[in-house]
Amino acid sequence: MDRTNPEGAIAAAAKRCSNWGRWGADDVLGTLNFLDEAKRREGAALVRRGVSFSLAQSFDADGPQNGWRRRTNPVHTMLDTGLDAERGQGFPHGLGGADDVVFMPLQASTQWDGLGHIFDHGVAWNGRRAGDVVTSEGDRVTGIETAAAHVAGRGVLLDFGDLPDGYAITTGDLEARIAAQGASARVGRGDLLLVRTGRLARARRDGWGDYAGGPAPGLSFTTADWLHRAEIAGIATDTWGFEVRPNEFDDAFQPLHQVCIPHIGLFLGEMWDLDALAADCAADGVWDFFLTAAPLPVTGAVGAPVNPIAVK
Amino acid sequence: MDRTNPEGAIAAAAKRCSNWGRWGADDVLGTLNFLDEAKRREGAALVRRGVSFSLAQSFDADGPQNGWRRRTNPVHTMLDTGLDAERGQGFPHGLGGADDVVFMPLQASTQWDGLGHIFDHGVAWNGRRAGDVVTSEGDRVTGIETAAAHVAGRGVLLDFGDLPDGYAITTGDLEARIAAQGASARVGRGDLLLVRTGRLARARRDGWGDYAGGPAPGLSFTTADWLHRAEIAGIATDTWGFEVRPNEFDDAFQPLHQVCIPHIGLFLGEMWDLDALAADCAADGVWDFFLTAAPLPVTGAVGAPVNPIAVK
Amino acid sequence: MDRTNPEGAIAAAAKRCSNWGRWGADDVLGTLNFLDEAKRREGAALVRRGVSFSLAQSFDADGPQNGWRRRTNPVHTMLDTGLDAERGQGFPHGLGGADDVVFMPLQASTQWDGLGHIFDHGVAWNGRRAGDVVTSEGDRVTGIETAAAHVAGRGVLLDFGDLPDGYAITTGDLEARIAAQGASARVGRGDLLLVRTGRLARARRDGWGDYAGGPAPGLSFTTADWLHRAEIAGIATDTWGFEVRPNEFDDAFQPLHQVCIPHIGLFLGEMWDLDALAADCAADGVWDFFLTAAPLPVTGAVGAPVNPIAVK
Amino acid sequence: MDRTNPEGAIAAAAKRCSNWGRWGADDVLGTLNFLDEAKRREGAALVRRGVSFSLAQSFDADGPQNGWRRRTNPVHTMLDTGLDAERGQGFPHGLGGADDVVFMPLQASTQWDGLGHIFDHGVAWNGRRAGDVVTSEGDRVTGIETAAAHVAGRGVLLDFGDLPDGYAITTGDLEARIAAQGASARVGRGDLLLVRTGRLARARRDGWGDYAGGPAPGLSFTTADWLHRAEIAGIATDTWGFEVRPNEFDDAFQPLHQVCIPHIGLFLGEMWDLDALAADCAADGVWDFFLTAAPLPVTGAVGAPVNPIAVK
Repeated sequence: MDRTNPEGAIAAAAKRCSNWGRWGADDVLGTLNFLDEAKRREGAALVRRGVSFSLAQSFDADGPQNGWRRRTNPVHTMLDTGLDAERGQGFPHGLGGADDVVFMPLQASTQWDGLGHIFDHGVAWNGRRAGDVVTSEGDRVTGIETAAAHVAGRGVLLDFGDLPDGYAITTGDLEARIAAQGASARVGRGDLLLVRTGRLARARRDGWGDYAGGPAPGLSFTTADWLHRAEIAGIATDTWGFEVRPNEFDDAFQPLHQVCIPHIGLFLGEMWDLDALAADCAADGVWDFFLTAAPLPVTGAVGAPVNPIAVK
Repeated sequence: MDRTNPEGAIAAAAKRCSNWGRWGADDVLGTLNFLDEAKRREGAALVRRGVSFSLAQSFDADGPQNGWRRRTNPVHTMLDTGLDAERGQGFPHGLGGADDVVFMPLQASTQWDGLGHIFDHGVAWNGRRAGDVVTSEGDRVTGIETAAAHVAGRGVLLDFGDLPDGYAITTGDLEARIAAQGASARVGRGDLLLVRTGRLARARRDGWGDYAGGPAPGLSFTTADWLHRAEIAGIATDTWGFEVRPNEFDDAFQPLHQVCIPHIGLFLGEMWDLDALAADCAADGVWDFFLTAAPLPVTGAVGAPVNPIAVK
Repeated sequence: MDRTNPEGAIAAAAKRCSNWGRWGADDVLGTLNFLDEAKRREGAALVRRGVSFSLAQSFDADGPQNGWRRRTNPVHTMLDTGLDAERGQGFPHGLGGADDVVFMPLQASTQWDGLGHIFDHGVAWNGRRAGDVVTSEGDRVTGIETAAAHVAGRGVLLDFGDLPDGYAITTGDLEARIAAQGASARVGRGDLLLVRTGRLARARRDGWGDYAGGPAPGLSFTTADWLHRAEIAGIATDTWGFEVRPNEFDDAFQPLHQVCIPHIGLFLGEMWDLDALAADCAADGVWDFFLTAAPLPVTGAVGAPVNPIAVK
Repeated sequence: MDRTNPEGAIAAAAKRCSNWGRWGADDVLGTLNFLDEAKRREGAALVRRGVSFSLAQSFDADGPQNGWRRRTNPVHTMLDTGLDAERGQGFPHGLGGADDVVFMPLQASTQWDGLGHIFDHGVAWNGRRAGDVVTSEGDRVTGIETAAAHVAGRGVLLDFGDLPDGYAITTGDLEARIAAQGASARVGRGDLLLVRTGRLARARRDGWGDYAGGPAPGLSFTTADWLHRAEIAGIATDTWGFEVRPNEFDDAFQPLHQVCIPHIGLFLGEMWDLDALAADCAADGVWDFFLTAAPLPVTGAVGAPVNPIAVK
């Protein structure tokens, strides 16, 4: 890999890994096409004990966001509270109510990137012009609502423990981890792959610091081919940005995104909380489960908050 | 039922149906306590074909909200668009990105009411003072995040077709519908019950009109005992307000809420889209399924948006 | 005027009225250039009694907006209230506090249109490309903050009483009104002209109805030349849209805006409350005053809320 | 002053300085009652050159707020941009438009504290119960809209140059500064007093750092009596919090606020930008001017953004 030429590396990987046209010119689902009914049956069959885990981080003002590109933490405010109810709100027969609103960037906390989130030289998933897909009215083509019903199937967790910042997870690392975790950790077509780096656990321990945008372990740019070949439906990590940071080129910003989203059509999940699930999987040695991770269908959103639920 | 005395009727029903203390003084889950691991296994076993349905309405500016008590429709705006990406955003190697934010009442569209949403004479679920539960900082006791991992299990749909506005679904109606739909429609402890009234389909056909807050079919106040006795984990409808409107007293506002939430500890879902699922259930004659309806865990929220996913 | 050819009429008026280049290629102030120090001295000299009037409508949820193009009414929510203070907020020595936030379209209520608000065939004030002026990052050239310090000077009110909806105020009407009101109503270079149509008073009496975007009296398209020739610094009305509605062409939308903002560089104020001021002016027969109408300097805004203060 | 007893010091100062009842039981204006028509005439007469200054800081994401108590910086997003206009927005005759929204704490940038902002032991201005004044519906008694028309009059600037953090400006300092600046700096009944500490200039030079809430020069607690006796209509500074920080007691938070707002009924302005005005005053030796500082009338707000305009 030539550290000085991210543009060339991206172009080459994009060419090798492109799924453009694979599901027709009108496709809006990308790799979610791999997640079919058989895969959902396979996922449901993994529910053995009935225990469930939420893989969502909190959505509140104490989150990791620092205002970069106007991405703030969620601000939750009340329209009515219990104190108002105690005082009297004008409802009959002693009824009282509380109600609330939220203002938040859609990628403030646990989320899926939509296919309209990242472009390569002004081109979006399936070869569309970026400006034909996402205007100020939102993503009118691949808005996250198009994925709303699809993201339920077999999930697999790969747990790398506690990787140091800047550690680039390679294809070899992925394969070794799968082998080490055993049969329940096999990864294939239509699976939803979860990669735990330990970065969130570290932030819990030490404070957010520069969790958002700073150094972190993550997927190496060189895994693009594996991600393409594996035909997974989506992949999510416990980090801010999915791929290793600093990125593996001298002057780059999220180059793996630039291959994965517009070219592979791959759904990327970020800022997931995989800690409790990982502890459970380590305890029982079973690394796959039924995963439902349906994004909140904000019409035209290029990303969306999600409360992913794993059931084992 | 004495139409002139909602307060007395509520007090009596509350006394008959109270679950206070049933799960200890510290309980924050209410009827979600009924949804146990066995129920999740039972739910997962219902996945036979692997087909999935999103039961969420849209989250956008074209929704039913009319500003009542400052409940507006979601406003989704872009921080960056494909047009900006085409023009150039200052990222290296041709990367472009779109990003977005949303401002929305948490009960603007498909949602769960949290246990801190409704009070009876200043008292919240499990007998707590309303003002000790929900302040301007949100619900610090039963905030919706406490339910985040729990709502996955067996769902059952009862389809009443197209009920007229003001139609109060009675206990007899519920039992008749269960009987008519057959074994897969049985309702019991820990189930998540979905009741389709046809109100949303009507709004789709005729426009929102006064979908939010206006006349609608819904549960009769008299079903409180059945809802309590059935030991369901939650119940959701395709209407704005779950219970019949106008309410069944001369001067009342959501009296069944006042029994269900603070006294039964029951989770109520509103504004769900049950139409596609209902059509499928009618076609194959199977009315139960695996339902994952995990609320977005906005810390301290008294209600939360959700994208419920039913898998059959 | 050919009702079938708004595009031609706009092009012709734009050519006749263009101020492009008049204040240099870098100009961001447009007609505010006319409002000089002498004019401010003249304005200040009009303060005879010391009585002040706010010309702002309310900023709240009970406003006229109906969600058109996502323009909602302001939503004001509390971060802390007096009830929280009574209960205790953790501050020392008995201190309590209330705090609040607002979410609002910048043109939700009383406002100035900025020079980046309207374009003619993709071209903004002074001949700049629209996309070079206003991106998703806001108006980086003529953002309303550039006008922040300027809008204080001589104001003149013309009161047309209670015009019917659809009434197009012509140049003749303007001149007749000036003549009728007398010397204090003369309008010239650098003045801030306020035109009262009675539309707001009607909305107060009858409800908002379609105040936002519906039929209204307002300036005729044919006044473009007068507005240009008069060399006023800005003009504001008590209507939603400044110009007469329906517009005076068969198929048109705010054609006078398309001449005034990008070509004349004229600042347009909308949804002002001129009623109390008009009553006072009628009572004392003096129609000019010192007007300070400084927009809230939201960086990059294409319009901005304002609380205009007239002092007589 | 006993550093260990802020509560006692506050109670004593409150007793000495109370204006409760001075303007009747229904008063909502507090010290704005001092700002009468004569004072406005006096202010207008100070306009000699006609030069105007905006005393507002920016309202944008690059502000000083750090999320303390959910106070974030303003987030400004676009509903439509020039890029959308270039692409085509569906309007006739080549019209294009840009539009925008803002989400912001009302005290995010240059602002007035309303009389419902601070309470003393649960009591608000004029002796009202805090919870009777400010509920989740906002301040229904002293909402900032009640002040909307009033704040225009004589402003006086006292420039302390560049005070170090923690410097407490005393009554002696105020009087010495007035004397040093001469006749145009006299301060009396109904004046709007501006106090420049140099803190903002420092933040401009060195970055925001802990401008919001951190150490700063400011008014000493001991100036309460002078502020009361001077009968000024309002006072504003270039700091986050008006009074010196750290506060002058061992364990305290904004004790001078607790006297000024609920007891004196004094309007406090914070985060004003006095730098350009100060430079001009130093240059011409004239320290008073006509000041219009009308808060944006968000109904029920306990504080409000403002673009203050000084004209000399």
